[in-house]
Amino acid sequence: MSKPLILVTNDDGITAPGLHMLIRFMRELGEVVVVAPESPQSGMGHAITLDSTLYSKKVTMDLEKGGSGPEAYSCSGTPADCVKLALQELLPRRPDLCVSGINHGSNASINVIYSGTMSAAIEAGIEGVPAIGFSLCDYSWEADFRPSENAVKTIAAEALRNGMPRGVVLNVNIPRTEGDPVRGIRVCRQARANWKERFDKRTSPSGRDYYWLTGEFELLDKGEDTDEWALSQGYVSLVPTQFDLTAHHAIQNLNNWRLHENN
Amino acid sequence: MSKPLILVTNDDGITAPGLHMLIRFMRELGEVVVVAPESPQSGMGHAITLDSTLYSKKVTMDLEKGGSGPEAYSCSGTPADCVKLALQELLPRRPDLCVSGINHGSNASINVIYSGTMSAAIEAGIEGVPAIGFSLCDYSWEADFRPSENAVKTIAAEALRNGMPRGVVLNVNIPRTEGDPVRGIRVCRQARANWKERFDKRTSPSGRDYYWLTGEFELLDKGEDTDEWALSQGYVSLVPTQFDLTAHHAIQNLNNWRLHENN
Repeated sequence: MSKPLILVTNDDGITAPGLHMLIRFMRELGEVVVVAPESPQSGMGHAITLDSTLYSKKVTMDLEKGGSGPEAYSCSGTPADCVKLALQELLPRRPDLCVSGINHGSNASINVIYSGTMSAAIEAGIEGVPAIGFSLCDYSWEADFRPSENAVKTIAAEALRNGMPRGVVLNVNIPRTEGDPVRGIRVCRQARANWKERFDKRTSPSGRDYYWLTGEFELLDKGEDTDEWALSQGYVSLVPTQFDLTAHHAIQNLNNWRLHENN
Repeated sequence: MSKPLILVTNDDGITAPGLHMLIRFMRELGEVVVVAPESPQSGMGHAITLDSTLYSKKVTMDLEKGGSGPEAYSCSGTPADCVKLALQELLPRRPDLCVSGINHGSNASINVIYSGTMSAAIEAGIEGVPAIGFSLCDYSWEADFRPSENAVKTIAAEALRNGMPRGVVLNVNIPRTEGDPVRGIRVCRQARANWKERFDKRTSPSGRDYYWLTGEFELLDKGEDTDEWALSQGYVSLVPTQFDLTAHHAIQNLNNWRLHENN
């Protein structure tokens, strides 16, 4: 039996340590092909390249600890572009799994909406490929990904074994544990939260006003079944995430609006 | 009583005819402030500007049929950036409604995932502002927005009257009717669909391979309660859309995965 084919991508770009770690974990589970952005794409949401051209090139990846690297491509586009190009052009066959990450920074709660890491996973999910986005709650380029090893491999192996519920991709976030092992894995819902933005307004040398976006994360959810709660307790959070955005519970309510008088 | 304050934005940029039409419709319902991207942002998904600066400038809008234009700003960022900047910096007070569009092109079914139009509405929704994205199923810059007038004003007026169900924004798509009035408004769910991509591979004058993304829309859903069905019948589709992406129905299933052995 041939080994499963695993597409590995991310949004921090092909040089990111989190990508290299994820490749190492995945090579224990299957044959890996890497298609990742040539430059960091954080905050790209589910952007795709519509009005411009895409480039990709085969690259050699030097992973730590020797051995030959996997087949790998860099791509000029967004994470979602990488997945589209991988599935249509670059992969030798349909992959059994797509994993994205490990992101340098949290994609829990409302961050999923802005996440390039998750947009790659969602793109694969739309195409019917089981997919998981992995993120570590540590923005540092030198973040320690080792405590996540068991959890990442366990979740990926279970996805290969069970397949994925239809229309679902997994959003996995890993707590920062200062070297300790994680406490376990919790299946969660997305916490209600938002960012309290503040714009830092400055003036350029030429006298033009400009802004830097800054902000503070604001958790608005006290539930103990949320991803933010699990992470705060040292657990890996696993949220089944869907791309049918319909708020089915609101349809009844909206059917009571006066929408039919003038139409 | 003061008039409601309506924030108008879009993803086709501040010069788009669809934006100008939406401004005209909204000025009949309230006081309008416009904050829109200075250049087209289609396919930007929910991108935000994290690692670079944002500019905005006050602009004069000349709408057809005379009269003074509304207070208006162009912004160097994405649609989500426009909404963040509007709410935090540019608006005189919290708006009563945010409308985005009218997009030149459909954002029904899976297109909602890639939509800059909807990302602006979702950003407002996350901030607790009632929000609606409007899109016309016609990509032409010369598209005829007049048949949508009643439906757009009716839905916006109802949103002002009723408020919005919590955690919900509206994704409104308008059929192309060749000048006929629309048949009415249907509350729908998002149809299951995807894009069958094809990459058009070419070689540059310097010998470098590049790709254009092309594709065909593939409807995978025969339901008569979907947005695609409503549009095919000449109705405006209204889908309540949420930014809690949790697939709650999948949590039970995932709790049966073997996630706890090695952690």
